[in-house]
Amino acid sequence: MNPNHVIEKILASRKIIPAKEKGEAYAPSNIALAKYWGKRDTQLNLPVTSSLSISLHDKGSFTTVSASSVNQDILFLNSRKVPADKNFAQRLSCYLDLFRPTKDFYFTIETTNTIPVAAGLASSASGFAALILALNDFFAWQLDDQSLSQLARLGSGSAARSLWQGFVEWHAGKAIDGSDCFAEKLPYTWPTLRIGLLIVSDLEKKISSREAMKICQQTSPFYDVWPTHVAQTIETLHKAIQQQDINLLGQTAEQNALAMHATMLTSNPPFCYWQTETLTTMQKIWSLRERKVPVYFTEDAGPNLKLLFNEEILNLVREEFPLIDIVEPF
Amino acid sequence: MNPNHVIEKILASRKIIPAKEKGEAYAPSNIALAKYWGKRDTQLNLPVTSSLSISLHDKGSFTTVSASSVNQDILFLNSRKVPADKNFAQRLSCYLDLFRPTKDFYFTIETTNTIPVAAGLASSASGFAALILALNDFFAWQLDDQSLSQLARLGSGSAARSLWQGFVEWHAGKAIDGSDCFAEKLPYTWPTLRIGLLIVSDLEKKISSREAMKICQQTSPFYDVWPTHVAQTIETLHKAIQQQDINLLGQTAEQNALAMHATMLTSNPPFCYWQTETLTTMQKIWSLRERKVPVYFTEDAGPNLKLLFNEEILNLVREEFPLIDIVEPF
Repeated sequence: MNPNHVIEKILASRKIIPAKEKGEAYAPSNIALAKYWGKRDTQLNLPVTSSLSISLHDKGSFTTVSASSVNQDILFLNSRKVPADKNFAQRLSCYLDLFRPTKDFYFTIETTNTIPVAAGLASSASGFAALILALNDFFAWQLDDQSLSQLARLGSGSAARSLWQGFVEWHAGKAIDGSDCFAEKLPYTWPTLRIGLLIVSDLEKKISSREAMKICQQTSPFYDVWPTHVAQTIETLHKAIQQQDINLLGQTAEQNALAMHATMLTSNPPFCYWQTETLTTMQKIWSLRERKVPVYFTEDAGPNLKLLFNEEILNLVREEFPLIDIVEPF
Repeated sequence: MNPNHVIEKILASRKIIPAKEKGEAYAPSNIALAKYWGKRDTQLNLPVTSSLSISLHDKGSFTTVSASSVNQDILFLNSRKVPADKNFAQRLSCYLDLFRPTKDFYFTIETTNTIPVAAGLASSASGFAALILALNDFFAWQLDDQSLSQLARLGSGSAARSLWQGFVEWHAGKAIDGSDCFAEKLPYTWPTLRIGLLIVSDLEKKISSREAMKICQQTSPFYDVWPTHVAQTIETLHKAIQQQDINLLGQTAEQNALAMHATMLTSNPPFCYWQTETLTTMQKIWSLRERKVPVYFTEDAGPNLKLLFNEEILNLVREEFPLIDIVEPF
């Protein structure tokens, strides 16, 4: 389905006219504990399965939107101008096409990320979430959360989950126009939960997540059970979060992440985002668990690991992983 | 089912009486291109699926069997006496219990392996295959191949495939006594096929294949599709072998091996036999393939890689992997 029709329906009678000089917003990055991996519609970024994430508090994107003074979109990323022929600038301009007041209206977008770009830390999630929030501010649409989540999703699937802090569930939905495919904040807190970011590499990825999930969906023999596995994962995560059970949460999230990587290993051609440090760190975490230390990891389409643990073992985690960056999600 | 009943049926009216002073035999090791991973009967080593292997010519086990002069079994491995309390010695004595002429008859077993022990190079396969062939010689049973394959299987599943050189298929069968569960040599040759052994580590494994396949079978969400995947793998391998198509053979075997490792990554608890060199070598092989070099790998429950390629790229393979040990299976 054409995204323009979806936009029309969501914006309804709202006008696309700047309401102020500058729109602005912040959105946190998020880490999926039950991954988004595979699409049922590539144009609308409709996922095969639901997913469940935790947002990263002060790791995210701050974005401002204003009118461009020249005849093209201008993008600043961390105060540096991004050339218009860059993939990311082109992708952004395509997205902005959906929201131009007139055909010859161009935007200036300034985004400051507090996380490395394109290193599997979902900067596109917080980026597109902050952008749609800033557009909502710029045009004074006053859209509800479900609508904003759908619009963010059109930019990047996981951006649908980045509108809130805390635990968020993104419902896969069934409608072909994606009208039932949005995320919502879950009513749980977990004050002692900690997320540890271990950056193995902040280089750009050779294969984008978009491309990766497509290959897996089309060629891995294991993709057949992925939807059932994710449904079970989400059910168990709800239980783990309600009970604040770090072992159940960690084991469930880790298995789901490894299952995603297993679909990459078994795709045709096979591929693997891990670097040697990824593997040795995973094995180190497994050794810690043999010593009954309740620390788990999740990983996305990249070499970095995100550790999951409770505040009570923070000192031990810092000793074992001196370069870790700790996030307090609540 | 009790293995003793199976033995009775296979040996039929044959006597268990030494016919000569020393029985002897050689059996090659084998590498599965479609893996044996999961059992439907642990006592009889009946597998969940069929499997297909290639034997390793002069890499294998040479074994002699004679009567022990003391009141216990004596085992020599590569000319060194193995203490009776070692796991492997105990496992061997349990197997020999099935074949004692009298309760107080003990064996002396001397085995010389031309491959590292317990490093994922299936020395138990050639070991038990050579042992049953040597017992057949020692007792002058003159058993047929199907019977020998069944008896070898009782020692170690993959030993059922190590009675022949070349390509071998082990049929899973359906009978509860395993009477239709034996391997047979396939009528194909492939003179230009080469196997390259890359030993990353010859240390003993922390988790045995037996234990590993059990955990995967019981806990990996991906094990559900394993049987279907292996059936397709075997069908494709037959086609690849008949057409001597190295790309089809390599791609199929590599995917199957990675699928097996994927069940380990997604089991509970997860585990991984790879060492950093395993990962970097896999990635190196994938890079070579991007340059259109037709080299593939398979790997078993260990860190070592076995490369599959045709003779025409032998020099290139030797240059890229100076420590490689080349096997000419035909």
